[in-house]
Amino acid sequence: MHRRPVPLSKAYRLLNHGPTVMVTSAHAGRRNVMSAAWNMPLDFSPPKVAVVIDKSTYSRQLIEASGVFGLNVPCRALAQAAHDAGQVSGRDLPAEADKFQRLGLQTWQEDGQDGLGLPMIEGCVAWLACRVLPEPRNEQVYDLFLAEVVGAWADERVFADGHWLYGPETDPALRTLHYVAGGHFLTIGEPLSVDLGD
Amino acid sequence: MHRRPVPLSKAYRLLNHGPTVMVTSAHAGRRNVMSAAWNMPLDFSPPKVAVVIDKSTYSRQLIEASGVFGLNVPCRALAQAAHDAGQVSGRDLPAEADKFQRLGLQTWQEDGQDGLGLPMIEGCVAWLACRVLPEPRNEQVYDLFLAEVVGAWADERVFADGHWLYGPETDPALRTLHYVAGGHFLTIGEPLSVDLGD
Repeated sequence: MHRRPVPLSKAYRLLNHGPTVMVTSAHAGRRNVMSAAWNMPLDFSPPKVAVVIDKSTYSRQLIEASGVFGLNVPCRALAQAAHDAGQVSGRDLPAEADKFQRLGLQTWQEDGQDGLGLPMIEGCVAWLACRVLPEPRNEQVYDLFLAEVVGAWADERVFADGHWLYGPETDPALRTLHYVAGGHFLTIGEPLSVDLGD
Repeated sequence: MHRRPVPLSKAYRLLNHGPTVMVTSAHAGRRNVMSAAWNMPLDFSPPKVAVVIDKSTYSRQLIEASGVFGLNVPCRALAQAAHDAGQVSGRDLPAEADKFQRLGLQTWQEDGQDGLGLPMIEGCVAWLACRVLPEPRNEQVYDLFLAEVVGAWADERVFADGHWLYGPETDPALRTLHYVAGGHFLTIGEPLSVDLGD
């Protein structure tokens, strides 16, 4: 309802401030979700990202098969699901089960024109559809995946005209999550602008 | 004065919540500093990091020559310097000038036992001493540098026993910076702990 497309030239700004993301994937009728604090923008144009996806994860298996993944930026309202996504593996669920359902997550389907057919998580504040740039050595040695961003969206209540709108009036439930460890997150705080000089 | 060593096993937590960092470097009597929002942890043990360092930067030249760099986590009190570090290149300064001095930054020397001899920025809230893991393809194609963390420190007022201590009582000047674009930062906000389950 509040989801709006973000120009690809501004897509890096959805990750620039370092939020923890939830990685979504799908292949051959199965789909999965995991959380990843280890992500960053890698380039402006075309926009690229880097994310660490451990060999042990079921998401890794789906992403290696499909060559695509979604980065979903959760907010405070989804903190429990963002944490719990790391506690159970989709591989351990029965074939008819669904990790999204298990976590109480609703999804929308990223499948419009040029869409990659990815499940994306409702209630997040930003979304990036990504196509893997195959780099076998990085993937094998470092669990590091590089990808090009081919679609981007954000919740207009907190991101518009290329900028995050966070301020004292922001609904706390919409603040991005920044994971530390052991169930402890920090949420994003107040804005600060500096002098741009001459 | 408030700087305390952080065990290497906890070093990833200094970057896990996605702060913008200032990258310090030194080689053959010259030294430099730049800012980098594009950084992330890459592994727990031994701790590794990834950071994007553009080919056009003077820092890149020093880091390629020395094989080491420092990651300094600035706080709100250093926001102007963190921004301005991206506006002037150390390469354009006369040989006798110093970009740290130009930005009003004091430094301490990371040169104890097993030290890498890096300049580190006073007034930051965390510091990581890093040794480059040479990956020529990543560096050339993506400006992406991977490194092992060999030393870590944090300001005990905001990080102790492996955890950030941010809360409503925290001095706002000590909050980490999360860059967006165009002189706009977000500062880190309040903590949130979720149910760890059974």
